[in-house]
Amino acid sequence: MMKDLTELRKEIDVLDKQLIELLAERFRVTEQVGKFKAAHSLPAVDRTREGEQEKKVMLLAQKVGLDPAIAKRIQRMIIDEVVARHQQIMHDK
Amino acid sequence: MMKDLTELRKEIDVLDKQLIELLAERFRVTEQVGKFKAAHSLPAVDRTREGEQEKKVMLLAQKVGLDPAIAKRIQRMIIDEVVARHQQIMHDK
Repeated sequence: MMKDLTELRKEIDVLDKQLIELLAERFRVTEQVGKFKAAHSLPAVDRTREGEQEKKVMLLAQKVGLDPAIAKRIQRMIIDEVVARHQQIMHDK
Repeated sequence: MMKDLTELRKEIDVLDKQLIELLAERFRVTEQVGKFKAAHSLPAVDRTREGEQEKKVMLLAQKVGLDPAIAKRIQRMIIDEVVARHQQIMHDK
């Protein structure tokens, strides 16, 4: 039988809670990266690292059944948020 | 002592793996939502539900120390991807 909308939305809310907690944790780590980069005068953007991350994420997405194009767009957005924050940390130094 | 970049990046890669798995799971559930909506001729967009999700996510973000504005932008992007997919499901019906 098809699950109804209420049931499915409850599942989504549980997943969103986990997603936000995971993103919070990820931004805590990238905050440390930003401070490290600022302390060592490293640039906020690292295209080599970004390229590696993109490859990894797209491969993994395919493996777990997530559209790699969607995974790539979401990852790109997260990285853009992180870079903006790193530029802020450098600016405030 | 400050963790170095290699260490921090390893932590990020672990979190990204979890993030992709969670997103895959979330898109599996929203795929069911899309099929339910198409089967019941419900619209792909539900602004009331979106408003509730936004409020929940921003409150939770604040609670776990994630910038609510960032949480909101990432959630908006995920919902946009979902709506595009739901419109595709309806179109293919």
